[in-house]
Amino acid sequence: MIEAVAEQTTKDRIVEACLETLKEEGFAGTSARAIARRGGFNQALIFYHFGTLNDLLLAALDRTSERRLSAYRAALAAAESVEEKVASATRLYRDDLASGHVTVVSEMIAGSLSRPDLGPEVVARMDPWIDFVEESVREPLDRAGLSSVLPPRTAAFMVVSLTLGVNLLWHLERDQTKAEALFEAAGRIARMLAPAFGGSDG
Amino acid sequence: MIEAVAEQTTKDRIVEACLETLKEEGFAGTSARAIARRGGFNQALIFYHFGTLNDLLLAALDRTSERRLSAYRAALAAAESVEEKVASATRLYRDDLASGHVTVVSEMIAGSLSRPDLGPEVVARMDPWIDFVEESVREPLDRAGLSSVLPPRTAAFMVVSLTLGVNLLWHLERDQTKAEALFEAAGRIARMLAPAFGGSDG
Repeated sequence: MIEAVAEQTTKDRIVEACLETLKEEGFAGTSARAIARRGGFNQALIFYHFGTLNDLLLAALDRTSERRLSAYRAALAAAESVEEKVASATRLYRDDLASGHVTVVSEMIAGSLSRPDLGPEVVARMDPWIDFVEESVREPLDRAGLSSVLPPRTAAFMVVSLTLGVNLLWHLERDQTKAEALFEAAGRIARMLAPAFGGSDG
Repeated sequence: MIEAVAEQTTKDRIVEACLETLKEEGFAGTSARAIARRGGFNQALIFYHFGTLNDLLLAALDRTSERRLSAYRAALAAAESVEEKVASATRLYRDDLASGHVTVVSEMIAGSLSRPDLGPEVVARMDPWIDFVEESVREPLDRAGLSSVLPPRTAAFMVVSLTLGVNLLWHLERDQTKAEALFEAAGRIARMLAPAFGGSDG
């Protein structure tokens, strides 16, 4: 039992070191050696606990993705109107830019483009986000009578693709102005459409 | 005069060989050697005509980008309604997926993420597309009284970011189903909004 806890702690430490390395040195700089150096452990531990560097990279992506998805789920569940949901999502996305989550995702996507062994694995990790957005927009779209025009699944794919594009542009330009303009427009559109979507989910 | 023409032809040939190499071998495989092999010329010609491999890569991105932008401009100018514009853009985007244009753009974006000397140059090449979308949506948005809610520049950034995200997902998954679902929804939305946007630009 104590050994299982110790193992979990070591794995956690390796995953956190991998995330920090992706943020600071990018995908190309995230070697087993660089991760071990940053975390202050022997790089043999990576292979002992994760088998391959790919598996560690995917575990790190899973970690940051699950953590952020929980935050979005909680915030959107607490919001009482579409307008509040948009405001909450905007705040969380600003955190994602500031915390380096967007950097990790962008580096993993860009890195996996040239690595056919990673590409499908990285894409598969977007599915829980598409599911989450789909659940979040289904009721408002139904209420507005728009589901046949814009099916919830398609709307969700649109939102996730848009986020991916904004992420990559932000990552390339380090200019948050354009993303901010989008957030503001989303807020205005939510206020305009509030009557159609229904003001309260309570 | 004849020499100038011959030089232009050689440069064209090098640019086309670079585009083919990006399509077939990806960013990581597009070395001067690989381009020269594919084009059947001496790799010294690349440095003679373009200075650096980076400059050739950007010239290739410019070539495919300008070619496609002209096609979009012509098709959208010929379309007489928002609905027709959406249908034209959908056809052209399908061509972009099939022809390898999306592959070239995605490889350049992914490659430039880990190359700070290329990133800003690649992003700068999206500006003409943002300008083009902005011009295309300004009148319909004005006519629908939506410009203050969704400024044309922001709408254009949204469309270009969304396209970038869809490109990258398509490139990673090679699955056109999701993009097709988006096209179909865009067509239905255009038909639904046609009265607000005005049926004809003629």
